[in-house]
Amino acid sequence: MVYPYVELLYRKECKVSYSILVVGSAALDTIETYQTKVEDCIGGSALYFAAAASLFTPVAVVAVVGKDFPIDQIHFLRQRGVDLSGLNIVEGLTFRWGGRYDRDFTHRETLFTALNTFETFNPIIPQHLRKSDLLFLGNILPELQLFVLKQMEKPKFVLLDTIRLWIENERKALLDVIAKVDAIVLNDEEIRLLTDYSNINKAVKSIFKLGPKLVIVKRGENGATLHTNQNDFFALPAYPLEEVEDPTGAGDSFAGGFLGKLAQIEQLNLFAFKQALLAGTVVASYTVQSFGLQRLSTITLQDLQIRTDYLLQSILISR
Amino acid sequence: MVYPYVELLYRKECKVSYSILVVGSAALDTIETYQTKVEDCIGGSALYFAAAASLFTPVAVVAVVGKDFPIDQIHFLRQRGVDLSGLNIVEGLTFRWGGRYDRDFTHRETLFTALNTFETFNPIIPQHLRKSDLLFLGNILPELQLFVLKQMEKPKFVLLDTIRLWIENERKALLDVIAKVDAIVLNDEEIRLLTDYSNINKAVKSIFKLGPKLVIVKRGENGATLHTNQNDFFALPAYPLEEVEDPTGAGDSFAGGFLGKLAQIEQLNLFAFKQALLAGTVVASYTVQSFGLQRLSTITLQDLQIRTDYLLQSILISR
Repeated sequence: MVYPYVELLYRKECKVSYSILVVGSAALDTIETYQTKVEDCIGGSALYFAAAASLFTPVAVVAVVGKDFPIDQIHFLRQRGVDLSGLNIVEGLTFRWGGRYDRDFTHRETLFTALNTFETFNPIIPQHLRKSDLLFLGNILPELQLFVLKQMEKPKFVLLDTIRLWIENERKALLDVIAKVDAIVLNDEEIRLLTDYSNINKAVKSIFKLGPKLVIVKRGENGATLHTNQNDFFALPAYPLEEVEDPTGAGDSFAGGFLGKLAQIEQLNLFAFKQALLAGTVVASYTVQSFGLQRLSTITLQDLQIRTDYLLQSILISR
Repeated sequence: MVYPYVELLYRKECKVSYSILVVGSAALDTIETYQTKVEDCIGGSALYFAAAASLFTPVAVVAVVGKDFPIDQIHFLRQRGVDLSGLNIVEGLTFRWGGRYDRDFTHRETLFTALNTFETFNPIIPQHLRKSDLLFLGNILPELQLFVLKQMEKPKFVLLDTIRLWIENERKALLDVIAKVDAIVLNDEEIRLLTDYSNINKAVKSIFKLGPKLVIVKRGENGATLHTNQNDFFALPAYPLEEVEDPTGAGDSFAGGFLGKLAQIEQLNLFAFKQALLAGTVVASYTVQSFGLQRLSTITLQDLQIRTDYLLQSILISR
């Protein structure tokens, strides 16, 4: 099977953009929603990110899986030019996560976590990837994120993601990472936990003092906002879906769309960040329409264009 | 004291726009926040609405208060040209409401409700107000909202507000009202309760089948979205405040800014609705910076302009 977007997006254009590296998890997720339960579907921050970013530009993955990982199911990533040389396949089982969402997807509960091979994940960056221009530090232990940063040779832009678990239990290491990155993407709960400010805007200001120049607030069905330490503020609604199947990976694919777009346009200024926020929002809107990477694996350029145009219209106030 | 905006906004321009009538509550609120407690501050849907709408255009109020109501504290409304001939002052005490907000203002708890004179509120519309062009049905018993509608002579546009209490306990009468109005303003919790859809966008679609052509979703710190039965969708973020003092009245003053702007520009089309959403968002951002009507009573045209420009910038994606 040949995926249409591959041709459309960069085989024909054949443009070399900023290179992207993602380091994160690869997982098999068991997900319960109000309506369905799906077992062992492909997930993890690195794979969601790569599936999204690869719509815009080639991307390289560093992650670990066990021998049980159904590698053929991510063949589409290779077809899109994803460099999987850093995806280590080791003895043992792949990291598994199980979670359950409430009816309106506003809360999720972790049902189980089996780290398996992920427990001893040692993210050694292959030599040829250490010069990557853009880096996404997906949700892994902050100490490992620091270790990744140390191996890199002056990336142009580093985007960080984290979760409640590390904010609560690995605060010191996490603050060390935060001090070294350009941008951080968080939801409102994470922002409040990290800063201890209940007001999101005050909280965002306080994060600038920790180091990052850019903070992206993920607001789920309410969209996303972008804040810079130069007082710039930009907001986008979520694409107004009438059905959501599974929100897992929305944040990682949002980050993938964001960095993928930055890489594609090879710019790191406010206008580029705004376009990147739009790309991330659009990609995430497709992610949540299926379990796992399913919908992400079939997105076409036309799909992206339709929702991009729709969202641009939804923030247009002129006649 | 003469308020600067009166001159600026319409004494000098002296333009007669669409007339607005609001029917709702006038109250004395006791509000507890994480930091402060304030007793008997002026509130109620009709007064918050009037304080906001009167920044754009004259407005008439129908409501009831007791003899204990500190009428001098709303003198500024008269100075702004608000028609208070429909504000009935009757024997007895004014409606009192007490509520407490949690630290990040995401939840509020009603501590007490003393209806007092509001219990026998019979909203007879003075003859000269029955021809009003625009009508805001503030949060009162749906049966009374129906009674108001019956007295009106073909208003051009009716905006409805309601609360959880009536959605749960007065559903039949409420559905009757909803069938007769042009637009409804609700928060996400109210939308889910009203429609029994957990997905907001699906819920909004189902509301169009009940009658309204326009649904406005109030999303608190995440802004507001506007949806039409013609599939138009427009989104605005909230103005990014770093301090909120008291969110009481945010929704009513948002509605006031919305209808006030529609009246001022004398248009009832998508472009007008978008501008109105912006005006409502801006006014509400000032409302929450003080308890009661305090900040609303001192807003200047310049204040409105500054935040309007800021929000326009925050949805501008071009260079």
